[in-house]
Amino acid sequence: MHVNVVFNPTASSKDYTVFIDELQTLCFDTKVMIVTNTTVAALHLETLKARLHVKTLHTVILPDGEQYKNFESLHCILNACFEHRLDRKSLLIAFGGGVIGDMTGFAASIYQRGIDFIQIPTTLLAQVDASVGGKTGINNDYGKNLIGTFWQPRAVYCESAFLKTLPHREFAAGVAEIVKMAVTFDRDFFAWLETHDLHVDQNLAEAIRKSIAIKARVVAQDETEQGVRAVLNYGHTFAHVIENQTAYSVYLHGEAVAIGMVMANTLAKSLDLLSQEDALRIQTLLRRYDLPTHYDVPSSEAFYEAFFLDKKSANDTIKFILPQGIGNYAMRNDIPKETVLRALKGDHV
Amino acid sequence: MHVNVVFNPTASSKDYTVFIDELQTLCFDTKVMIVTNTTVAALHLETLKARLHVKTLHTVILPDGEQYKNFESLHCILNACFEHRLDRKSLLIAFGGGVIGDMTGFAASIYQRGIDFIQIPTTLLAQVDASVGGKTGINNDYGKNLIGTFWQPRAVYCESAFLKTLPHREFAAGVAEIVKMAVTFDRDFFAWLETHDLHVDQNLAEAIRKSIAIKARVVAQDETEQGVRAVLNYGHTFAHVIENQTAYSVYLHGEAVAIGMVMANTLAKSLDLLSQEDALRIQTLLRRYDLPTHYDVPSSEAFYEAFFLDKKSANDTIKFILPQGIGNYAMRNDIPKETVLRALKGDHV
Repeated sequence: MHVNVVFNPTASSKDYTVFIDELQTLCFDTKVMIVTNTTVAALHLETLKARLHVKTLHTVILPDGEQYKNFESLHCILNACFEHRLDRKSLLIAFGGGVIGDMTGFAASIYQRGIDFIQIPTTLLAQVDASVGGKTGINNDYGKNLIGTFWQPRAVYCESAFLKTLPHREFAAGVAEIVKMAVTFDRDFFAWLETHDLHVDQNLAEAIRKSIAIKARVVAQDETEQGVRAVLNYGHTFAHVIENQTAYSVYLHGEAVAIGMVMANTLAKSLDLLSQEDALRIQTLLRRYDLPTHYDVPSSEAFYEAFFLDKKSANDTIKFILPQGIGNYAMRNDIPKETVLRALKGDHV
Repeated sequence: MHVNVVFNPTASSKDYTVFIDELQTLCFDTKVMIVTNTTVAALHLETLKARLHVKTLHTVILPDGEQYKNFESLHCILNACFEHRLDRKSLLIAFGGGVIGDMTGFAASIYQRGIDFIQIPTTLLAQVDASVGGKTGINNDYGKNLIGTFWQPRAVYCESAFLKTLPHREFAAGVAEIVKMAVTFDRDFFAWLETHDLHVDQNLAEAIRKSIAIKARVVAQDETEQGVRAVLNYGHTFAHVIENQTAYSVYLHGEAVAIGMVMANTLAKSLDLLSQEDALRIQTLLRRYDLPTHYDVPSSEAFYEAFFLDKKSANDTIKFILPQGIGNYAMRNDIPKETVLRALKGDHV
C-alpha cells in the first residue's frame, strides 16, 4: 500500500509516493550513496544492499544518536559526496531514523545546490513522521533543527521488516507521534487507537498508513509551515525545551513529545479548550505504551524564556498548538505569559 | 528603472524586482541584519543605514575576499542570527559583492529552514550577475560554490552610487560578465558594447539594465539550471579550474571568466562554431577593459581532470557552453577528450 504526497499540481516535480511494505528491488543508473548509522548498518545494511541494483554504490556509516546530529556529521556526509565525486544526478539514500533522515536530506539539499534523495526510515517515528514532509536539519548549541532546509525526498519506503528489531522505548516514541496526529486531526482514529493494540502487526501497518495519510495531506497543503503544518508541532514547542534542558540525553524525541503534549493539554484545559476527561484519555493512551508524561520544570521562567529560541517564535510571540477537544486544534499566539507560567507550574494531567 | 524577475506565474511567491537607482528609504517592521565586509562597511555602511527604517538593526562585518567565502564565515553569519535571536520573519541584507551575496543568501536559506533576504550589490559583477538568480554558496577544498542552495532574494537594489568607489580591476571584472551575456544571447547588445564606453555613466546604467534583463529572463525560465540557465556558465567551466589552480589569489572571478571565454572560443573555433573574426571581436572588447585573456595551462591533462570536480559535470561527462557565432550558443557534452586537450594546448585567440 502507499500514500501519494501531492503538492500544488503545478509544482508537480515535488510530488512523491510513500510506499508501505512495497520495497522489492530498486534500480538506478546513477551513483548512489547510502547514509546510515552503526546500529542500522549492523542489523539491516546487507538486506538493503541486496535489493539495490545501481551503477556505483557507496556507503557512509555515522555514529548512532541525536548527539551526532550536528555540523560534524553533516561534513562527514558532504566529504563522502566529494570524495566519491557524486554529481548533480547522483542520489542519496537515508537509511535510519529521524536523525539520519534529517541530516541526509540536509546534505542532499546543499550538495551542489541540491541533489535527489530517498528515505528508507527504520524507526516507527521516522516512518510515521520524520520521513514525510521534507524538513531537514541539524541541531546546534541554540537548539534543535535550527539550521536546515525544506527539501522533499523523491520517494519514501516504509518497511515493517526494519521495525522488528526496534527497542521498546523507540517503538513507544513512534506511537507518541501517531497519537499526536490523531489528537489534532482525527477523533475517530484516536478512538480506534484506544481499542487497537499497535503491537499487533496488522494494527501497526494500519496506524502507519493513517498517520502518513494525515501528514501527507497537511504538508502538501503547506510545505513551508506558513499555516496548518504548524499543527504537527503539537507537543513539540514544549518538547524542544525539555530536550534542550536535558541535553538530548534523557528522553527520546517521541518521549519528550509525549510529555510536551500533556503539558500543552494542561495549558489547553486552563483556556477551556480541552476537558479534563479528554486530557485523561490522551494521557492514558500514552501511558499504555509506557511513555513518560511528566517533567519537573526546574524554573518556569527559564522554561518560558527558552520558548523564544524555538524557530516557531516569530517576532517575540510564541505560537502554541493546543488540542480543541480530541480531533481538532487551536493555534494561539495571544496567551498571556502569566497563563503559560501557571500551566508550567501546574500538575500536568 | 527596474526589472521584474517573474517565475512560473503559479509559483508567484518567488518573483521579485531588481530596482536600478531606485533605493530611497526602506522600512521594515521586523528584525533586520546587514551582512557586509570591512571594505564596503568603511565606504558605504553609513549611507545604507541612513536609508533604513527598521525595528531592530544588527550588522555583521566579515573580512573582505574570496578566500573568506567558506564555512567559517557562514558560521559567523549564522551565529550572529542566533545571538540576535532572529526569527522566521527576520530579514538579512547582503551588502557587498558576489561573495557577500552568495554567503548571505546561503545563510538565509538554511537559518531556521529559510528566511528572507535582499541583495544590495556593491560591485558591477554582483549587480549584473551574482545578485540575480538565487544561486547561493560557499567554496571548499574541492572547488567553488560546491555547497549551496537556490534561494531567491525578495528584492535586489542596484545603486550606481556604490560603484563610484570600485577599483579599476573590479569594474573590468564586471564588464566580463556583461560581455558574456551579450556573446551568448544578444548580438545587437554586443555590437552596442563595441561602440559605447561603459565608463560613461549613462552607458553603464543601460548595460546594467540590459544584462539584468537577459539574466532575469533566463533564470525565470530555468531556476535550477536544468537547461538554458547553464548557458550563463559560458567561460565559467574553464574559469573555475583556473581559479582553483591559482588558489583564488591571482585573478578576480570576472578576470578568470574573461580568460575562460577566450579558451571556450578556441574550442568553439576548432568545432567550427565560431569564426576567427568573431573570436577576435570578443577578445578585443575584453582587452579594451584591460581584462586578461590568456592563462598558461601547466598541464592539459590535469586541467581536463579538474573539469570533473565542477558541479556541471554530471555522470562523468562535461557540458561545454560555447558561442555559436556572436549572440547564440551551443551546449555540447559530446566533445572528445582529444579535441579538448588540443584546444587547451592551443593558442587562445
